[in-house]
Amino acid sequence: MTQKVLILPGDGIGPEITAQASRILAACQANGLDVEVEEGLLGGAAYDAHGEPLPAETLEKAQAARAILLGAVGGPKWDKLEDLAKRPEKGLLGVRKQLGLFGNLRPAITYPQLAAASSLKPELVAGLDIMIVRELTGGIYFGQPRGIEERNGERVGFNTYVYSESEIERIGRVAFEMAQKRGKRLCSVDKANVLEATILWREVMERLAPEYPDVELSHMYVDNAAMQLVRAPKQFDVVVTGNMFGDILSDAAAMLTGSIGMLPSASLNESGQGMYEPCHGSAPDIAGQGIANPLATILSVAMMLRYSLDAPELAERIERAVGKVLDEGLRTADIAAESTRTVSTAEMGDAVLAAF
Amino acid sequence: MTQKVLILPGDGIGPEITAQASRILAACQANGLDVEVEEGLLGGAAYDAHGEPLPAETLEKAQAARAILLGAVGGPKWDKLEDLAKRPEKGLLGVRKQLGLFGNLRPAITYPQLAAASSLKPELVAGLDIMIVRELTGGIYFGQPRGIEERNGERVGFNTYVYSESEIERIGRVAFEMAQKRGKRLCSVDKANVLEATILWREVMERLAPEYPDVELSHMYVDNAAMQLVRAPKQFDVVVTGNMFGDILSDAAAMLTGSIGMLPSASLNESGQGMYEPCHGSAPDIAGQGIANPLATILSVAMMLRYSLDAPELAERIERAVGKVLDEGLRTADIAAESTRTVSTAEMGDAVLAAF
Ligand SMILES: CC(C)[C@H](C(=O)O)[C@@H](O)C(=O)O
Ligand SMILES: CC(C)[C@H](C(=O)O)[C@@H](O)C(=O)O
Repeated sequence: MTQKVLILPGDGIGPEITAQASRILAACQANGLDVEVEEGLLGGAAYDAHGEPLPAETLEKAQAARAILLGAVGGPKWDKLEDLAKRPEKGLLGVRKQLGLFGNLRPAITYPQLAAASSLKPELVAGLDIMIVRELTGGIYFGQPRGIEERNGERVGFNTYVYSESEIERIGRVAFEMAQKRGKRLCSVDKANVLEATILWREVMERLAPEYPDVELSHMYVDNAAMQLVRAPKQFDVVVTGNMFGDILSDAAAMLTGSIGMLPSASLNESGQGMYEPCHGSAPDIAGQGIANPLATILSVAMMLRYSLDAPELAERIERAVGKVLDEGLRTADIAAESTRTVSTAEMGDAVLAAF
Repeated sequence: MTQKVLILPGDGIGPEITAQASRILAACQANGLDVEVEEGLLGGAAYDAHGEPLPAETLEKAQAARAILLGAVGGPKWDKLEDLAKRPEKGLLGVRKQLGLFGNLRPAITYPQLAAASSLKPELVAGLDIMIVRELTGGIYFGQPRGIEERNGERVGFNTYVYSESEIERIGRVAFEMAQKRGKRLCSVDKANVLEATILWREVMERLAPEYPDVELSHMYVDNAAMQLVRAPKQFDVVVTGNMFGDILSDAAAMLTGSIGMLPSASLNESGQGMYEPCHGSAPDIAGQGIANPLATILSVAMMLRYSLDAPELAERIERAVGKVLDEGLRTADIAAESTRTVSTAEMGDAVLAAF
């Protein structure tokens, strides 16, 4: 049966980068990938068109798709919206929640061609390869009760950080299995010296450990994890953590590779349905100029082929093509350096297609 | 009236580093500082002696003291304590809460003599001087309800992230005033695109801004802040944020200076009563070996003199003495480098005293 792929360009540079990724996807179709590709609106673009960041039509298309490719959402244009429910970010959170995409895989890899771009000393990041597994449909992002209300004559803002055993267990299993396929070391990050929610987290991780005897499980407090990422990132193999800590740590890890314009991510549910998107944001400051880096989005297509569409050979072809283009010295402005050739978004897309 | 200073050595390397700081404090007394110095038990040491991480006697002494010097608390010995209320960390949190020490000042400074120790490229950290103002008695650390309980046939762990307008306003004022005394730029860190508690935070910061027209206020999401700290830390002057984000960001910032063994901190209430402690932890792995770096604790005495004891000249003398010792090439093992002389904890104390 032909599977469906939904492309959600989103806001800012989203349409430019997904346009290039679409060309690669089309090349995969020409090489035997049996998918039907659609487009939809999400985020600020959807709000502008329909007054909702996640219109019913988009949600229906998303539910019917095996895989979704997202550009990015958000921008200053919508930051002043009083109603949080209308903000672009809520569209993204809505897709994650409605499709149950609880398993967020965020690789932090240093591309050898780009190690010099890191703010860290080259020897600390050369060869870096961390996989951050972030829980994506629970924790403080979705916990109830939440809101702003009057108490004792003043307003109070509140959110709830909550995890159940089954939520922890299912993301724990994703992480243990990932560690089995990689370096067999799993570091679970929590704040179990302060937060009860993460005491339960640590307990469940400990309980799962005997089922994965080949994986070495360790625990780290989140403040220490932030320090260790900066100090010696190569000590990590797979990291598993909750939604909020994962948001912070995965962005820090991505940035310290120096390759943030290159990093894809996957958000998966239990049936392998997934949303794929670059780690970077919508970069409204450079939107529309044709200079954004499409490689993280193109590599997100590779992740999609591997995790949702069962086409690992095509995934590898894309990854090899990207490596080749970097070897040739082509760079978009964000990763340009001395003696490289700066190209536009579309020229980068051309080059990857040619190398595919 | 003679003011009281309470020393709480705590756990791990705590007793070794506070011992050296006590000698400096004694030298200040010999130079006219009118204080009475006492000692007390906190953390694991207090638990071992009295079964409580914050015994009533310690709390009384703390309440009677104008300033407290803390070494550090915690260690693997107490990590397995089932009852969270008995853990060393809860002793520390108890002092913060009971004394209302809501304003946590965490400088992240690169000592010129130590810039090479940073994992970041030297040009990114040379001259770095950030002040992180962290709210310390509210947020998810203390929010109710909290706990682990059975719901729908499984256990659930939960915590509450909560801030009232008045709590936000008082830490906001500390931060704005700090910015006025420094580079006049204040960056407030939140996650206002997801969390209601931080929407209120942002709103209150905006409301305060017109009262400090000389300060330029900006806002940043916490994930972006973690990235920007890694990418270009010198863009920050004063950063203000809540308890949990402050815990993570201040540790990351401290580590990236390369000077973490050197960084003091202050936790103040509205009347200027304060607790002073190094940014680093109790380092149980090197406890008892006489090799820990006492400089962050010694510099915490300087902060104490400045913020609680109104003795800025003595504070400056300590800071100059520390600078001189570094210039002379003396280093404890944690900050040792080529062509420096590695000294013990006590030898470092000797050297600072001699330079005082
Ligand atoms: C846009 C925002 C809601 C989102 C998040 O916080 O999860 C983003 O930062 C991310 O990490 O995907
Ligand atoms: C020991 C721990 C409870 C504490 C905290 O999280 O506040 C520490 O990490 C700190 O930053 O002072």
